[in-house]
Amino acid sequence: MKLNNNYRNLKESYLFSEVARRVSAYAAEHPDRKIIKLGIGDVTRPLAPAVVAAMQKAAGELGDASTFRGYGPEQGYAFLREAIAGAYAEKCVSIASDEVFVGDGAKSDLGNILDLFDPACEVLIPDPVYPVYVDTNVMQGRNIRFIDANEQNGFLPLPDPSVSADLIYICSPNNPTGAAYDRAGLTAWVEYALGHGALILFDAAYERFISDPSIPSSIFQIPGAEKCAIEFCSFSKTAGFTGVRCGYTVIPHTVVFDSVQLSKWWLRRQTTKFNGVSYVTQRGAEAVFSPEGRAQSQEAISVYLGNARKISDALGELGIWRVGGVHSPYVWLRCPGGDSWAFFDRLLTEANVVGTPGAGFGKNGQGYFRLTGFGTPEATAEALERLRTVDLG
Amino acid sequence: MKLNNNYRNLKESYLFSEVARRVSAYAAEHPDRKIIKLGIGDVTRPLAPAVVAAMQKAAGELGDASTFRGYGPEQGYAFLREAIAGAYAEKCVSIASDEVFVGDGAKSDLGNILDLFDPACEVLIPDPVYPVYVDTNVMQGRNIRFIDANEQNGFLPLPDPSVSADLIYICSPNNPTGAAYDRAGLTAWVEYALGHGALILFDAAYERFISDPSIPSSIFQIPGAEKCAIEFCSFSKTAGFTGVRCGYTVIPHTVVFDSVQLSKWWLRRQTTKFNGVSYVTQRGAEAVFSPEGRAQSQEAISVYLGNARKISDALGELGIWRVGGVHSPYVWLRCPGGDSWAFFDRLLTEANVVGTPGAGFGKNGQGYFRLTGFGTPEATAEALERLRTVDLG
Repeated sequence: MKLNNNYRNLKESYLFSEVARRVSAYAAEHPDRKIIKLGIGDVTRPLAPAVVAAMQKAAGELGDASTFRGYGPEQGYAFLREAIAGAYAEKCVSIASDEVFVGDGAKSDLGNILDLFDPACEVLIPDPVYPVYVDTNVMQGRNIRFIDANEQNGFLPLPDPSVSADLIYICSPNNPTGAAYDRAGLTAWVEYALGHGALILFDAAYERFISDPSIPSSIFQIPGAEKCAIEFCSFSKTAGFTGVRCGYTVIPHTVVFDSVQLSKWWLRRQTTKFNGVSYVTQRGAEAVFSPEGRAQSQEAISVYLGNARKISDALGELGIWRVGGVHSPYVWLRCPGGDSWAFFDRLLTEANVVGTPGAGFGKNGQGYFRLTGFGTPEATAEALERLRTVDLG
Repeated sequence: MKLNNNYRNLKESYLFSEVARRVSAYAAEHPDRKIIKLGIGDVTRPLAPAVVAAMQKAAGELGDASTFRGYGPEQGYAFLREAIAGAYAEKCVSIASDEVFVGDGAKSDLGNILDLFDPACEVLIPDPVYPVYVDTNVMQGRNIRFIDANEQNGFLPLPDPSVSADLIYICSPNNPTGAAYDRAGLTAWVEYALGHGALILFDAAYERFISDPSIPSSIFQIPGAEKCAIEFCSFSKTAGFTGVRCGYTVIPHTVVFDSVQLSKWWLRRQTTKFNGVSYVTQRGAEAVFSPEGRAQSQEAISVYLGNARKISDALGELGIWRVGGVHSPYVWLRCPGGDSWAFFDRLLTEANVVGTPGAGFGKNGQGYFRLTGFGTPEATAEALERLRTVDLG
């Protein structure tokens, strides 16, 4: 037996387990304190009523012989793919419904897309980073080159033309920093990819948090991206689907490398190694695009954005450098005092507020910290009140 | 850009598209004929009422702030893993709930498990075969050795001790042949795997069709399998979940190669490249194990088995050699006349009955044919009546 020994090169991530351990230890010693968690990367508001109704109706259909459905198309039902293509059309992006692939979430598709590429591909990943980009490539033995995101570039690095790469990860609005590229920034990346024969893997999981129409919410709003980019989207953060599991991947038929339409290979991968998303889930996702579903899910996003803006404003009043919090539920701040974990401890013990140390997201995260707008408005306001009254270092 | 050129070695499967093409063409020319499809590999009966109720309740919970759940554990909720472990206990198999991994179906897990192994592993696959075993290995560039399943061995091949292999696929009850190994047969495979340091990938998707308790319904009923086997199960055929998407993979902690517990690596794979199955789906799957859920899903299985048995009996009366149809919804028959596709055409044009040519499942499938019990009892009875009255070749 020969194992895939690349797995031995994976680093254990202690970030969230270490956060949980420190919080538990503190809570056990101070059972009277009310700890507020602003480190959470998960949604907290319920599904939209229109989504729940659609899912319940769909489940009922599967319980009736006259409306039962078995295997669906691996690529997703046309009703959902057409709704997604329609939403792109509203952004003035022309995507055919057979360029849309419904999956069980951006995380799955971001990992599985790598099946199409040789382990010898060069990968370019910004640091700090969502750890999944790194680990999925380590699992396949790929060489990773990091590009620095830092205060100097507003955590939005631009390409270095002297560096070559085959696969480029861009997440905008970014997790963990909340920073969002403008049109000029994404255009620079698209031109670089076209010039270097590279492919951009664009993670748009937070696109619905963009409120300014001048900020691109799809890489395909940039001319030329239809030849060099794949876009990964998700209903997780935009419609509260973290526990429901649905996302979609868009591969224009014009993305061609070595005479291969990547959309065809991805379809082959999915029909061979995947069997589609639950019909019930797909009906729920379709309802996100209905007038009621849009209004209801926008309400949740507005709450999260409101929280994030208040966090950002409070940090500004305290004279703390920060980015994000405008087109994103995430606020990324420079730690007063310098060290990510020392700041974590001070925030926990002095203000009883939990955040996420930036050091867990890569070397450029050291000295930074992530707070999120996914809490309730009341808890967020209380946490900010505490921040104003304690010595943060 | 370097693509995974193994994809270029994939053979297009024309089986089901060619079946569909021929049926459409015939139907267009003979619009008055009532065509009965017994080629279908998909369930047709609705979900059990207990399952529908559980899914609707779960969707409602997600719509209420006080019961909302976001990200669940990637491995599946404990409530479902414990129900699955409990069902194993009833079969006298001791499986811990953290050896159970809930996924979105056996097809996904059977493909994705290969991430753990080096492309240099030798693979042993019976022919005829569910094409996914072959294609997922071709995608990773593995060398495949086929073992003949044929009339001489009742389409249940036993290991050849002179042949070495790292990964061995066994599907019992089998798709496409419906043949099921007895205890002696599976014991031979387990002993071979233990002796050769090989791993058995055991596809148990049809285990609930076994009605004779002397026939193993889990590889783990064979002593030693807990050291050399991974079992893949599904709610698709056992509870009508083909459109709902839920399965589970069992990896005992005692399956160790090169000092690696494969359960740990699979957990790492799943936490990195998967985000768990919908909470709604998992509550539905849990309901399959409730007293009502069991009785209701057993009812559907009994209907399918009744159909399969009638098909087998009718073929027997016609003097046609066949296997399966007892512990399986599938009946595998020797084509009168010899050629799979010629028999397909004759059955379609003379009896207006559609089946699946065995030639599509591998070289040993040539001359054989698959009929399934997934139709309605009425349509199945009518199809058999037609078979009795026409010249089959």
